[in-house]
Amino acid sequence: MTIVALAQLNLMVGDIPGNARRVIDTARRLHGKADIVVFPELTLTGYPPEDLLLRPACDARVDSALGEIARAAEGITLVVGYPAVRDGVRYNIAGVVRDGVVESEYRKMELPNYSVFDERRYFEPGDSALVFRQGSVEFGVTICEDIWFDKPVQRAAAAGAQVLLNLNASPFHQDKAAERETLVADRAARFNVSVVYVNLVGGQDELVFDGGSFVVDANGKVAHRAAFFEESESLLVFHDGVPCVADIARFPDVDEQVYRTLVLGTRDYVRKNGFDSVVLGLSGGIDSALTLAIAVDALGPENVETVAMPSRYTAQISGQDALQQAQRMGVRHQTISIEPAFRAFLEMLSETFSGTEADITEENIQARCRGILLMAISNKRGRMLLTTGNKSEMSVGYATLYGDMAGGFAPLKDVPKLLVYRLARWRNRDSEAIPKRVIDRPPSAELRADQKDTDSLPDYETLDGILALYVEQDRSPDEIIAAGFNRALVERVTGMVDHNEYKRRQAPPGIKITRRAYGRDRRYPIVSGF
Amino acid sequence: MTIVALAQLNLMVGDIPGNARRVIDTARRLHGKADIVVFPELTLTGYPPEDLLLRPACDARVDSALGEIARAAEGITLVVGYPAVRDGVRYNIAGVVRDGVVESEYRKMELPNYSVFDERRYFEPGDSALVFRQGSVEFGVTICEDIWFDKPVQRAAAAGAQVLLNLNASPFHQDKAAERETLVADRAARFNVSVVYVNLVGGQDELVFDGGSFVVDANGKVAHRAAFFEESESLLVFHDGVPCVADIARFPDVDEQVYRTLVLGTRDYVRKNGFDSVVLGLSGGIDSALTLAIAVDALGPENVETVAMPSRYTAQISGQDALQQAQRMGVRHQTISIEPAFRAFLEMLSETFSGTEADITEENIQARCRGILLMAISNKRGRMLLTTGNKSEMSVGYATLYGDMAGGFAPLKDVPKLLVYRLARWRNRDSEAIPKRVIDRPPSAELRADQKDTDSLPDYETLDGILALYVEQDRSPDEIIAAGFNRALVERVTGMVDHNEYKRRQAPPGIKITRRAYGRDRRYPIVSGF
Repeated sequence: MTIVALAQLNLMVGDIPGNARRVIDTARRLHGKADIVVFPELTLTGYPPEDLLLRPACDARVDSALGEIARAAEGITLVVGYPAVRDGVRYNIAGVVRDGVVESEYRKMELPNYSVFDERRYFEPGDSALVFRQGSVEFGVTICEDIWFDKPVQRAAAAGAQVLLNLNASPFHQDKAAERETLVADRAARFNVSVVYVNLVGGQDELVFDGGSFVVDANGKVAHRAAFFEESESLLVFHDGVPCVADIARFPDVDEQVYRTLVLGTRDYVRKNGFDSVVLGLSGGIDSALTLAIAVDALGPENVETVAMPSRYTAQISGQDALQQAQRMGVRHQTISIEPAFRAFLEMLSETFSGTEADITEENIQARCRGILLMAISNKRGRMLLTTGNKSEMSVGYATLYGDMAGGFAPLKDVPKLLVYRLARWRNRDSEAIPKRVIDRPPSAELRADQKDTDSLPDYETLDGILALYVEQDRSPDEIIAAGFNRALVERVTGMVDHNEYKRRQAPPGIKITRRAYGRDRRYPIVSGF
Repeated sequence: MTIVALAQLNLMVGDIPGNARRVIDTARRLHGKADIVVFPELTLTGYPPEDLLLRPACDARVDSALGEIARAAEGITLVVGYPAVRDGVRYNIAGVVRDGVVESEYRKMELPNYSVFDERRYFEPGDSALVFRQGSVEFGVTICEDIWFDKPVQRAAAAGAQVLLNLNASPFHQDKAAERETLVADRAARFNVSVVYVNLVGGQDELVFDGGSFVVDANGKVAHRAAFFEESESLLVFHDGVPCVADIARFPDVDEQVYRTLVLGTRDYVRKNGFDSVVLGLSGGIDSALTLAIAVDALGPENVETVAMPSRYTAQISGQDALQQAQRMGVRHQTISIEPAFRAFLEMLSETFSGTEADITEENIQARCRGILLMAISNKRGRMLLTTGNKSEMSVGYATLYGDMAGGFAPLKDVPKLLVYRLARWRNRDSEAIPKRVIDRPPSAELRADQKDTDSLPDYETLDGILALYVEQDRSPDEIIAAGFNRALVERVTGMVDHNEYKRRQAPPGIKITRRAYGRDRRYPIVSGF
């Protein structure tokens, strides 16, 4: 009998001594209870460390941390991830630490360099399997992307591995958890190995690692699944390489997965940046209502403050609905009219603008007055400002730079408008946290009299349909038209997406939840004649 | 005798039909004058096309453009760059187009995936030399990074190449032009080939390609150098593979190189984004003074507008100096006090802030009132707003998000403060375009009474010294202290650099001129415990 522990940890990128302490604490706590502890990919640096990897000080800190971990690993085997330079070349490594030394090292073979990943920027690929014996079982080691390819698994199996320990930092997107398990189960059955899949958990800038570590047997059957979205430590008993069945956490449905991703991503971004509270503008619309719910679930109502900022164009019910939701959620709420500042700017510019018609300029001034107020409260109270825009708006530039786009973090940045509605309903499943009228009202930016989103944009069913094909699936306008959308609309919407890259480049980070998010995931030129 | 033309073009990223037209026009114009025309790397897409390469429509447009080019290439050989999928894999290709067909294709072997480059994200490396005969000479083909390595050059030489045609998109940084020539000359002499080095010219987002195409003979001696910072078309006569000496443009000194890079980068960013004019805040300080000079040199005084925006803290001489420079440069200039809006915000927030002391919040409100005014003028008149901050400020976060950081483009983003002074003096070499007092005054943000930059920052000699070591050379704080800087200052400055990644992430793009610029060149996590 061999006992393997899955250490699904929430680590801190760059904090090598702190992450090493987490490893050592875990090893000490599991001493006598587990034979092997498996940690996530790049345990010591967190993931993704990006260009911190290029600092020579990073290598020195990893070396020093490894020394401490080795000294702590008496009577227990640790499989720990870290970057290291070997023979003049940097590798993404999983080290087997046993009896006070780093006994052997596996070098990741498959280096993802697509989507949000840049591993070829930092690492060279390895090309050898690593198998070690513990008790009567042969354990192979692979890292994350390796298991999506045949070669690394095949080599480990050929080298005698009965159980594959796979260290991961696999970020969330919709349906990813199910994809992972299906793929790993298939790989296990094809190469006749059990697989211990240990994932990272927690938010890091644009990414959320959703946890859900699991074990499949050599028939591809799930023997264990850890919780999603939280740290966990589970012990799996292997008899001759065959895992005994343990807890199998349920799969949350997709809306719940997304909502909990947004909560975890927001909490970690705020706290890991040294803040404990946030402020946001509450307009009475659906986007800020959902953002408020997420913020409260992430940080607690005592750490969230909202501000309603009406103008001459704000409907009375907007203020009522905002107040009602703030009261229901128990957050501090105030109302500050933007009219004095708005009037001051119009007056200051009256000579410069004399003879011109009101246009988008005056709308932007209103949004920017709100941005100034919110940033002033953020600055004065040390609360991070959350922006409330969604992916549909970010795609077509239906947002004001330095206005409603001002803020440190954008929880809904990758959430299309229709999904905003679904998530609001999901959040209201037990009680009406978000007033029903907020969900039912036609959306409006309220920047001029009787404005509706549909004055400038197609209805959201059409808009989100076009955007999914263009942004997430790289379809051409002709293909989108062939899929049944109106030619003029498709040309207008795709043109807006192309044109507004400059706005997105100055947007705050937000959480990736789709297959293609804006940010590191989608790297478009601003100047483009495509 | 074989005549090779170097087509140093300013292309438009993504505009495949437009770039193909440039190729065809060039071919037609040189018909009967040249035997071979060599174009820059990825001629048809421009460089870098980034994720446009992942759109299937990109491949289709390249195919169609190649067909048109082939039909136009009668009686002349064209060596053109483009991306293409061959056998299911995408390569960075140089095609030899002759007698109406794409006769052969070279696949780039060395794919840079560091600094600003992401070529492993898009391409697989090739592994075969390509040599073709024209007249009595054997021509080899390589692409950009290839020539920085032995293998591709060695293989071309081994395959019989007498002259190597190297297609480039080599971006500017200080001293890069000299580095390039030294390296290529060395390579030519070692492998006994002449080299025709054709570079791209023009600005693309953060990058400027500086041109300066050149030819070296097989002894490494420069036979020709094209102009820097502008399009050029030069004809080189080869006798049995030996180039005849032609025009050798002078090397501008480094300050001139940087200044002209900033002018070209600003002009191309503004115009290629469909603008023809800019607006900027002119404070009476050195940064906005230099930015104004660059804008005028890039776009002409009739396309530049400046605004002075004094507050209660603005010295009278600031307004005088701003007016004087605006008059000297012949740009439209106006003064709008920010006091009415600033007072309105203080009043609107008086209840919320009651019992608190004035702090950075009130300073930021002033900077943001200026941001709103400038963006309003930008919106109303369709002029792009230029921000005026420099690299020293961007590094330590001595700038206000949505305030002085608001704008579409930041010409000085990668220019350290001491270099701002040098460039201002260089620009004044013939006549005092920038008033001498602007250069001589101690720098101040003028956001509170009697404020000086040195209240918050070390003197710029010290600051820039620390920043160069930390940001550009990846030295650790201990190493910087060992280099002679005060420990407390080093810790404070490096801490500010780390802490302010969130501000830089929302900064507008600017022009890379150092070895390591902020932007695609330096990818740091925001959340970091390093």
